[in-house]
Amino acid sequence: MFSNSITKLFNTEYPIVQGGMVWVSGYKLAAAVSNAGGLGLIGSGSMYPDMLREHICKCKKATQKPFGVNIPMLYPNIEEIIQIIIEEGVKIVFTSAGNPALWTAYLKENGITVVHVVSSLKFALKAQEAGVDAVVAEGFEAGGHNGREETTTLTLIPMVKEKLKIPLIAAGGISSGKAMLAMFALGAEGVQVGSRFAVSKESSAHIDFKKKVIELKEGETMLDLKEIAPVRMVKNELYEAIVSLKKEHKNVDELKSFLGKRRLKRGMFEGDLKNGMLEIGQVSGFLDKIESAEAIVKDMVCEFIETKKRL
Amino acid sequence: MFSNSITKLFNTEYPIVQGGMVWVSGYKLAAAVSNAGGLGLIGSGSMYPDMLREHICKCKKATQKPFGVNIPMLYPNIEEIIQIIIEEGVKIVFTSAGNPALWTAYLKENGITVVHVVSSLKFALKAQEAGVDAVVAEGFEAGGHNGREETTTLTLIPMVKEKLKIPLIAAGGISSGKAMLAMFALGAEGVQVGSRFAVSKESSAHIDFKKKVIELKEGETMLDLKEIAPVRMVKNELYEAIVSLKKEHKNVDELKSFLGKRRLKRGMFEGDLKNGMLEIGQVSGFLDKIESAEAIVKDMVCEFIETKKRL
Repeated sequence: MFSNSITKLFNTEYPIVQGGMVWVSGYKLAAAVSNAGGLGLIGSGSMYPDMLREHICKCKKATQKPFGVNIPMLYPNIEEIIQIIIEEGVKIVFTSAGNPALWTAYLKENGITVVHVVSSLKFALKAQEAGVDAVVAEGFEAGGHNGREETTTLTLIPMVKEKLKIPLIAAGGISSGKAMLAMFALGAEGVQVGSRFAVSKESSAHIDFKKKVIELKEGETMLDLKEIAPVRMVKNELYEAIVSLKKEHKNVDELKSFLGKRRLKRGMFEGDLKNGMLEIGQVSGFLDKIESAEAIVKDMVCEFIETKKRL
Repeated sequence: MFSNSITKLFNTEYPIVQGGMVWVSGYKLAAAVSNAGGLGLIGSGSMYPDMLREHICKCKKATQKPFGVNIPMLYPNIEEIIQIIIEEGVKIVFTSAGNPALWTAYLKENGITVVHVVSSLKFALKAQEAGVDAVVAEGFEAGGHNGREETTTLTLIPMVKEKLKIPLIAAGGISSGKAMLAMFALGAEGVQVGSRFAVSKESSAHIDFKKKVIELKEGETMLDLKEIAPVRMVKNELYEAIVSLKKEHKNVDELKSFLGKRRLKRGMFEGDLKNGMLEIGQVSGFLDKIESAEAIVKDMVCEFIETKKRL
């Protein structure tokens, strides 16, 4: 029933990918998702090279199923990271936040399946041109870094589907089997789920961050920091401080200097809910429990099937 | 196949509503949509009372099928408008941009089916409490006036569906049968389509506006004017001027004074593409032709059925 271009590409049971999120997606989460029949991704963006190697090794022990690594292309030691991925025999890489032309050919020469994450049709076509095997198109409702066009998933997916020849994975605003089916109606063949896995038991995010997220209501995240790079975050004290600084007409350098470098780690990994940055998607408005990654995959699969029958 | 709570409520063949948009939705468009089996709405927001009466009378002559009128609750002569609607025997009213508690009871006492348009769960529940018969929940990707929470349709619909007891119509980002099916997967029982009808043959918008819209690519609309009231508009010269004024830290009064009062009419009705305000949704990125309202309804219905079979 779920067999399609995406399950064949990754050799998974379900076309459900867990987003490789910073401070959230260690080997425990990736292995749990892969063991449940989805594709788990280790998020390398918040790991030093040695730490990434350790997570890959532990993931190989924790699952016999396929898993992958997400690499933000702006990662400072990217060459080292890529060498580790090749040495450790990782078979699937998702690249994001950067130019897919830089590393796709090299990764593919080394037998790695490459998927690139984009927020617009324009970059989806560039990724295809760079030779990637599939594209994740992620809409405005997604947590964390986001596109300048502010195209929502509902608009983005059919727009990309119309022109793209390679398989398409939808992301942004997807946390349920219903939303997954909606994306399949629009032409996607897989979904990438971030926020719901970010608050799973196996997520390495701080427990206070998870508790905060499941209490959020609608409208409690906002896309901001467009002056630097658009990010969807929780409207906490840090967010209010950013809004105030902008009202005082502070410039980009002043904003950057106020933010400093460790805000994400503070918020998501150390649980400083006031001063840390808390990246999460709009679907946080209806997430209401901390559950296992396996329960999430199973629930999405069941709801997908039930909804298909109802339609 | 399409018979459900929405088609029963409106007594239409299809659960497809044409948005009652200012400067766009006169009797020609409303009658054409109703004749095609959808629900056509006259947009009273840009009409003086006498003009609205004329459109209602002409609409009654142009179709034997049910049609309705959209009333923005902030309309200055709203009492007069509502009297005309009752006198002329209009059976369906969509209210928007205001408090549904003000007029719902009175309209319903006069035998009118009332639907309220909202952009958040909070206001959906308020509308239900006010006694409306159904709710339109409209996401961030929609053209024109929009919610402060910036909730996208994909996130908004399941969030509203989970709590709302009355029928739900999805709006924002919907211009195809695929998107309609996606909304049904999320729990909506009807869709309201704006942008695609705004560029239909029967739309009263200026031909140059229609031509401009079908040439737009992704990212060429933006939600702005949040300082006054959030509006999604085309990024034309007027938009650039607004952005510049904000960079110069002009305040709300200065912005309002720059905008003046006739920007929408200039843009959408008179075809001043540079200095007029051009309201349209994100789906403009893939609208590529001016077609009849009947062709739009038929295409959506066919695509809905085909997509359902494909899934």
